[in-house]
Amino acid sequence: MHAAPFSDPERDAVYRAIASRRDVRRGFTPTPLPDDLLHRLLTAAHSAPSVGLMQPSRFILIRDLAIRSAIHAIFQDTNTTAAATYTGKHAEQYAALKLEGILEAPQNLCVVCDPHNPRGHQLGRQTMPETAAYSTVCAIQNLWLAARAEGVGVGWVSILDPARLRSVLHIPEHILPVAYLCLGYVNSFATEPELERSGWEKRIALETAVCFDRYTEPSDVKARNTQDAES
Amino acid sequence: MHAAPFSDPERDAVYRAIASRRDVRRGFTPTPLPDDLLHRLLTAAHSAPSVGLMQPSRFILIRDLAIRSAIHAIFQDTNTTAAATYTGKHAEQYAALKLEGILEAPQNLCVVCDPHNPRGHQLGRQTMPETAAYSTVCAIQNLWLAARAEGVGVGWVSILDPARLRSVLHIPEHILPVAYLCLGYVNSFATEPELERSGWEKRIALETAVCFDRYTEPSDVKARNTQDAES
Repeated sequence: MHAAPFSDPERDAVYRAIASRRDVRRGFTPTPLPDDLLHRLLTAAHSAPSVGLMQPSRFILIRDLAIRSAIHAIFQDTNTTAAATYTGKHAEQYAALKLEGILEAPQNLCVVCDPHNPRGHQLGRQTMPETAAYSTVCAIQNLWLAARAEGVGVGWVSILDPARLRSVLHIPEHILPVAYLCLGYVNSFATEPELERSGWEKRIALETAVCFDRYTEPSDVKARNTQDAES
Repeated sequence: MHAAPFSDPERDAVYRAIASRRDVRRGFTPTPLPDDLLHRLLTAAHSAPSVGLMQPSRFILIRDLAIRSAIHAIFQDTNTTAAATYTGKHAEQYAALKLEGILEAPQNLCVVCDPHNPRGHQLGRQTMPETAAYSTVCAIQNLWLAARAEGVGVGWVSILDPARLRSVLHIPEHILPVAYLCLGYVNSFATEPELERSGWEKRIALETAVCFDRYTEPSDVKARNTQDAES
């Protein structure tokens, strides 16, 4: 006797959240997120698996415009440096991309990890200590899916200088900044990822990412390597 | 006008998956997972957000008992070393824990990351390159929630020597092993995390993990530090 799966409509709802979740950078509306909704999102994040049940994730909620402006300034400087690494068509494309919604999204959230916290008594992280940070990423993905179900857009901004982010948010050395997120109601959820729509990158087929019994280089990588060798 | 949230039953289903997902180490049944179900789980994982749309996750599907036995031997050695680090009550508790289901679960899955893949053209990972591995963790959490909706248990085994894992699965140096998962139908999903039920660790209240506008040390950490100073 097996534990029963969810009913079909329930299962479909889970898959709908997974398939229609987007990294949102535009179209945020200024309506503040209600406290009860925010509490549900954080509860979802906090319910994530964590190595040794250490629960290392900490959530810094940010609405203050002065702080968001300081973060946005970090983004602008970091992004200017990043933009300068591209040439030709990529430089033009990159300049046209909208990569964050720090000021438009009414709710920002910095998710950090306390990777050396004694909770869990080191269980599961003696040989793979990176699993502490990974636990925090599981929390973020929970929040992202819950937000989609609530009609709330989430965008992850990684174009930031971590040292300056630490300084603005008073994050001490022993705490690891994992993600800076922008949250808010949105006009709509795009059907495709923004980076695909803009022509920056295309999604690959699942089949190229799967192998059996041992690691084998996916066919697209093999093709690229051949292409590189020929060009 | 905002994008609509999911209907209440749909939203509840997403929250149900998040709240009732467990790290499963026992109670797997030997029934193989049907190919179409496995395909849905991998599609869910592959739909995860990835930095710059690089999609760095690769999935090594393992059913072969010889390979699972080789992985299980790695677990046993690593776990013996880990167990030796505990003393007193913790040593007894640790010895009684069931920490993996490598041989009982009919389907194993090693999820790896290709962190230097040129896809995405470095977008978003120039200052935070760890976001490549984090993208793979988002994929894992998608799969974990989808599995819960399908009635499939998932357990993440991190008590492994990564070098020996690489050797058995032929994972080259440039590819990062992120997670080794055990999947299968289960007799039931526990209402509490296994490590809580066994008395190893207790979950903390969400409130201790939340702060506003800047990082502040959670109250439980403050309490522990005070306790340490006094003991």
